[in-house]
Amino acid sequence: MDVAALRSQIAQAAERVRVEKPLAGSVTNGVTMDFVANAQLAAGGSAAMVYLPDEAECLVDIGGALYLNMGTLMPIYEQTIPAAASAACCAGKPWVVDPVGIGIGALRSRLLAGLKDDRPTIIRGNASEIIALATLWELGGDAGTGPLGVDSVDEVETARAAAVALARWTGGAVAVSGVCDLVTDGQLVARCQGGSALMEKVTGFGCSLGGVTAVYAACADPFTAAVAAVMLYNVAGTRAAARTTLPASFKMSFIDEMAAAIPSDIAEGPLALEEV
Amino acid sequence: MDVAALRSQIAQAAERVRVEKPLAGSVTNGVTMDFVANAQLAAGGSAAMVYLPDEAECLVDIGGALYLNMGTLMPIYEQTIPAAASAACCAGKPWVVDPVGIGIGALRSRLLAGLKDDRPTIIRGNASEIIALATLWELGGDAGTGPLGVDSVDEVETARAAAVALARWTGGAVAVSGVCDLVTDGQLVARCQGGSALMEKVTGFGCSLGGVTAVYAACADPFTAAVAAVMLYNVAGTRAAARTTLPASFKMSFIDEMAAAIPSDIAEGPLALEEV
Amino acid sequence: MDVAALRSQIAQAAERVRVEKPLAGSVTNGVTMDFVANAQLAAGGSAAMVYLPDEAECLVDIGGALYLNMGTLMPIYEQTIPAAASAACCAGKPWVVDPVGIGIGALRSRLLAGLKDDRPTIIRGNASEIIALATLWELGGDAGTGPLGVDSVDEVETARAAAVALARWTGGAVAVSGVCDLVTDGQLVARCQGGSALMEKVTGFGCSLGGVTAVYAACADPFTAAVAAVMLYNVAGTRAAARTTLPASFKMSFIDEMAAAIPSDIAEGPLALEEV
Repeated sequence: MDVAALRSQIAQAAERVRVEKPLAGSVTNGVTMDFVANAQLAAGGSAAMVYLPDEAECLVDIGGALYLNMGTLMPIYEQTIPAAASAACCAGKPWVVDPVGIGIGALRSRLLAGLKDDRPTIIRGNASEIIALATLWELGGDAGTGPLGVDSVDEVETARAAAVALARWTGGAVAVSGVCDLVTDGQLVARCQGGSALMEKVTGFGCSLGGVTAVYAACADPFTAAVAAVMLYNVAGTRAAARTTLPASFKMSFIDEMAAAIPSDIAEGPLALEEV
Repeated sequence: MDVAALRSQIAQAAERVRVEKPLAGSVTNGVTMDFVANAQLAAGGSAAMVYLPDEAECLVDIGGALYLNMGTLMPIYEQTIPAAASAACCAGKPWVVDPVGIGIGALRSRLLAGLKDDRPTIIRGNASEIIALATLWELGGDAGTGPLGVDSVDEVETARAAAVALARWTGGAVAVSGVCDLVTDGQLVARCQGGSALMEKVTGFGCSLGGVTAVYAACADPFTAAVAAVMLYNVAGTRAAARTTLPASFKMSFIDEMAAAIPSDIAEGPLALEEV
Repeated sequence: MDVAALRSQIAQAAERVRVEKPLAGSVTNGVTMDFVANAQLAAGGSAAMVYLPDEAECLVDIGGALYLNMGTLMPIYEQTIPAAASAACCAGKPWVVDPVGIGIGALRSRLLAGLKDDRPTIIRGNASEIIALATLWELGGDAGTGPLGVDSVDEVETARAAAVALARWTGGAVAVSGVCDLVTDGQLVARCQGGSALMEKVTGFGCSLGGVTAVYAACADPFTAAVAAVMLYNVAGTRAAARTTLPASFKMSFIDEMAAAIPSDIAEGPLALEEV
C-alpha cells in the first residue's frame, strides 16, 4: 500500500458514504450527542443514539456500524456496552470505541477492560487515552502521564507504540488525535495534518470524530475508514479556521465545511505513510 | 371549517403563544433536548425537561401542555412516561407524543402500546413512525415498510390512512412530517408545504417540531395547534434555506427565523384543506 | 474592599483562568451540557461532565472546582450529588450549586436540603430559586412567589435578603441573576449590569454561568469568582446583542465574545458595591 493507493481508497469510501448514507448507531456521551449526530449527518451518514441494551443490539442489527463512546456513563451501561459490543462482534459489523475519560471511575475501567476480548474494529482517542488503554489491556508500552480529565497530557508520538500494540491486538485500526494525527493498523502508520487549535476550544471534536469514523467504517476497511475520517476533520477544520478565529463560529463553520467537502477534498489532504 | 377560518385560528394561536409564553414541559430525546428547548423558546413558549416520574407530573401541573418524545429511553421511563401521560389525561391538559424510534427495543414498544388508552392529544411523526404506531395500536392500515432507525422510509401519503385512523381513535390530531406535511383530525386533512431538504441534514427537526406543537397545543385546539406548528416550521425552514445551503448555518438561521416570524407569516403559508 | 480593589481582583482571576485552564468538573443539566462545557472552554477553563458517584469524586480530585446543577436529575443522583458535594468539602475545593427547578419533584428538594450542611462555596440562581432555597434551608426571608418551572417570577431585589442569609450561612458567595445581577458574600453586595434580554430567549445561560463560575472559583475567592463570572456574561452578552437581535445567532456570538474577552474587558464593566 502506498499513499496514492490509500488516497484512492479514501476517495472511494467518502463517495460510498455519500451514496449509501450508512447508519452508525451510537451509545455516546451526553455532552456531545447533538454534535456527534450532526457530524455524522454532515459526513453523509445517518445517526441514532440509545441508552438501553436491547436498543443498542437493534441498532447493530439495522446499522452498518456501531459507535461506543465512554463519556457520561449511566448505570445501565454496565449492560448496554457489553451487549452492544457483543452484538457487533457476532454480526461481524465494524464498531468504534472512544475510551474518553479512561481512568475516571470504576465502571469505565471495568467496561473498557471487558472490551479487550471483543477486539474493537477501530479505537480512537487522544494520546493519553490510547496509552492508558494499552496499559489497561496489558499490551505494554510506556504508561504515559495518564489522562487528566478528558484532555490529553501526552503528545501523539508518545502514543505510537501503544497504538501499534492495540492495533496488532485487535487486528483493526487505531487513531490518535492531536496536532499531527496518527493512524495505524499495526503494520502501517499514517500521519495526517490539518485542523485547527480551535478544535480544543470546543467540546466534542474527539467524540464526533469517533462517530464519523463509525460512519466511514460501514463503507471501508478499518484503516481506510479511520484515515478518511481524520482527513475529513482536518480539511473541514482547516477551512473553518480560515473563516473565523472564534470557537462557536468555528464549530458552525466546521459542520458546514464537512457537509461541503467532496471526496477529493478529503482524499487529497496532508498525508504521509510509513511502515511500523 | 374552510382554509380562511383555519388561517385565522392559526394566527390567533401564534399570537396567544407570543403573549402567554406557555410552558410545555418535556420528557424528551437526549440528542436534541437543547434544540427542542430553544425551538420552544423561539416559538414564544417556555421549556423545561425532566427524567423522573414525579417531576413530569409536576410539569403537567404547572404547564399548559406536555411533550413526550420516545427517543433515548432510560430505565426510569418505564415509570415516567405512563405517569406523565396519566397526569396530563387526569388534568385534561393537552399532550403531544413523538413515537421516534418505534420498533427499536422492547421498552419503547411497551410504552407506546400503553399510551393507546390515554389517547394523546396530538401525535407527530414521520410517515414510517405513524404507520408503525397505527399498526402497534391495531388500528389497521397498511403495515408500511417500517422505520429504519429514525429516518422515514415511507412517503407521507402512504401514512394518510394510518394518520386518520389514529386521529379518530384519539379524538385529537395527527401530524405526518415530510416534503408535503399532512395533518388530520380524522375529519379534515390539511396539507402544508415549505421547509427545506436541509431539515433532514440536521438532527432534531422532528423532535423539536413535537415540542413546539406542545407549546401551540397550550393555546389552541389540537388540529389548529398541529397545523400552526407545522406551518411555523415550514416558513422558518423556507426562509433559513434562502440564507444558506449548509446544515449548521441552516440550523442557526432556522431558530432565528422562528423567533422572527410573526403570526401572519405563519398563518399565510402554503396550506390546503380537504375532507377525509 | 472598594470597587477598584474588586476590579483588580477580577482582572487577576480572569488572567489566572486563561493561564491555568482549570478543570471544573460538573454533574449538570442534560438540556444544556454542551453549552456549559463550551462556555467553560470559552472562559478559558476545562470541562468534564459525569453522572456516577465515584466519577464525580474523581473529578473533584483532579479538578480545581466542582459544579452541581440540579436540572434533569437521574435516579443515580441520589448518590452522586451528596458524594460529589462531600468530596469537595473534604478536599477543601470550591464548588458551585445551581438550584434550578427547585420545587419540582421530591428528589430535588431532598438533595438540595441535604446540601445545606455542606455549605456550598457559591450558589447561583435566579431570584425565585434563591428565595426558594433560603426558604428550604429555613434561613428566613420572604417566601417569594416560588419558581414556576425554570423561569424566575421574582425580581432580583426581592431576593436580596435571601441571598445575604444564604451567603452568611455558607460563608461563601451567592449570585442572583436578573436584569441587574446581585452578588453577595453576606457583607458586601455587588450589582452588575449588562447582558441582554435575549439571554432569556435561549436555554442555558443560567446553567452555563454556574459552570463558568466554578471555573473562576478555581482561581479566586468565592465573591471575586462569582462577580467575575457575572461580569464576563454581562460583557459578552452586551457585545453579542450588538451583533444580532435573534436568539441562535446571539448564542453563537455570545460564546465567541466570551472567548474574545480579555481580563480588562471583564473587570471594567458596570459594577457597584455596597455594604449590606
